[in-house]
Amino acid sequence: MALLFSSQGDDADLWRHNMATELPDLDFRVWTPDGQDIGDANDIEYALVWKPRKGALKEFQNLKAIFSLGAGVDHLAGADLPKGVPVVRLVDRGLTQGMSEYVAYWVLHHHRRFDAYADMIAENGWQRLAQKDAHGRRVGIMGLGVLGRDALEKLKPFEFDLAGWSRTPKTIPGVKSFAGEDGLQEFLKRTEILVCLLPLTPETTSIINAQTLALLPEGAYLINAARGGHVVDNDLIEALDSGHIGGATLDVFHTEPLPDDHPFRAHPKVHLTPHIASITMPETAARAVADNIRRIRKGEPPEPVVDPETGY
Amino acid sequence: MALLFSSQGDDADLWRHNMATELPDLDFRVWTPDGQDIGDANDIEYALVWKPRKGALKEFQNLKAIFSLGAGVDHLAGADLPKGVPVVRLVDRGLTQGMSEYVAYWVLHHHRRFDAYADMIAENGWQRLAQKDAHGRRVGIMGLGVLGRDALEKLKPFEFDLAGWSRTPKTIPGVKSFAGEDGLQEFLKRTEILVCLLPLTPETTSIINAQTLALLPEGAYLINAARGGHVVDNDLIEALDSGHIGGATLDVFHTEPLPDDHPFRAHPKVHLTPHIASITMPETAARAVADNIRRIRKGEPPEPVVDPETGY
Repeated sequence: MALLFSSQGDDADLWRHNMATELPDLDFRVWTPDGQDIGDANDIEYALVWKPRKGALKEFQNLKAIFSLGAGVDHLAGADLPKGVPVVRLVDRGLTQGMSEYVAYWVLHHHRRFDAYADMIAENGWQRLAQKDAHGRRVGIMGLGVLGRDALEKLKPFEFDLAGWSRTPKTIPGVKSFAGEDGLQEFLKRTEILVCLLPLTPETTSIINAQTLALLPEGAYLINAARGGHVVDNDLIEALDSGHIGGATLDVFHTEPLPDDHPFRAHPKVHLTPHIASITMPETAARAVADNIRRIRKGEPPEPVVDPETGY
Repeated sequence: MALLFSSQGDDADLWRHNMATELPDLDFRVWTPDGQDIGDANDIEYALVWKPRKGALKEFQNLKAIFSLGAGVDHLAGADLPKGVPVVRLVDRGLTQGMSEYVAYWVLHHHRRFDAYADMIAENGWQRLAQKDAHGRRVGIMGLGVLGRDALEKLKPFEFDLAGWSRTPKTIPGVKSFAGEDGLQEFLKRTEILVCLLPLTPETTSIINAQTLALLPEGAYLINAARGGHVVDNDLIEALDSGHIGGATLDVFHTEPLPDDHPFRAHPKVHLTPHIASITMPETAARAVADNIRRIRKGEPPEPVVDPETGY
């Protein structure tokens, strides 16, 4: 009865400590790139992983579940996982909350024109700029899963004019919902602040491109906190340079860390953060993983189980 | 039946337009510094003002109410107002909402370490910084009037550890309440992000000083969106330079515009905004003023009536 932990970016000791608090009897084994001994492969019943080596998890015959260390599972696509073993997405209060903090902050940043104020103050200026009322500020979120819905709930008290877009129609009180190919055009045309929280799937790859950006109103703002693959970088840069898009906040990129010579790096209209919108905090996430292990031990299925190839 | 409008910073035409929408029969007269003719002084029943000249409102014998163009009424202290005429504070959805947007934005700014990330990105760095969970982030608001209570309501969904301080004890669900002199010490000791939304009164002038700043925990952050007079500027600068205070966002100052040579201007740990935290938007505020005029016409008292000398 052991759990195999494998990740380059997560703190193994912190996870070990927090998992021990939840499940003192669980044998916690860390798999490192230098091939540290992890004991008998047949002991491994659970894998808690980020970007495992292709085919690597196939050697564990008794694997009952593969837990993603993040909300997304696209890092598991192409990993050649053992067939029949459920892949479980991380749904964690801390993860969801962190994302909603990030979204609310950058929506308010654009809504209240803090870039314009910072520029003005840097030049010793001092004046009030025209300010739109939140009732008239149209914010749109792409992706209405756990993260998108929570972000909308956090934005509601500010009384923004909220809309959401997803693959299939969703009903969320107080939010105008759009769905599918047809709904996308209408959704983009009305969205002044666009937030991308979609899963990365073949259908959503490159969804933010020259055509879709052109549908947004003049001066619209983009917040991408999903995956770099959702955005066609050159199309976004052209839209920013033409002035059609007023600015962007990007947390995720095709290559991370973002290369030093990437045009986003020095772009005056782009705010960058190093993939920190939503941070898996072992303090809260260990509980979510442990709850699923307890479910499996009782013979119940873990949740939410997803297909890494489609993303949902 | 006329209203006298007098302000250097507010848009008279926009107010005229919005008041006409609410009360088409109201005669709207603008008082300018060059002494433009405002007709018969006895027609004036209402005054809608910001910083009127000392004693100036005494010439209107039929004045029924003096409306402040802002949430605060300290700009009317020492104005030698006519006795017996109620002074009405502006309580407006837009004004309250704007303040809560500002507070939530800057609380999130400090909570999520966006200054540290911006510095890191500017130097081509790329790493995750340690992040505290919102449950463990202690935010404290000084002043639990309409603005303070609304800001707390907007912060609640983020699940911060919230506290409030006011002159007299208040009960707000989900918020630890402290009151009076005794409560202030305890309140400050536990507050990592301090938000000042107090009215400016003799008791609250200079309340943020060397002694009170020293009570805050190491690295605490200050957000002052109330009045410049609440802060002893030199004490704050010393606390920032010693490192005891981690940073500050200031919207209000002893002298506005903030003089070009004021040490806040170039301070690396200070964010400045030009008194825009809460903006009176005629689109929404005219409704609040008109509602009070309708009340007076029906023989009801306007609200909230305040004493400009005490501030409440």
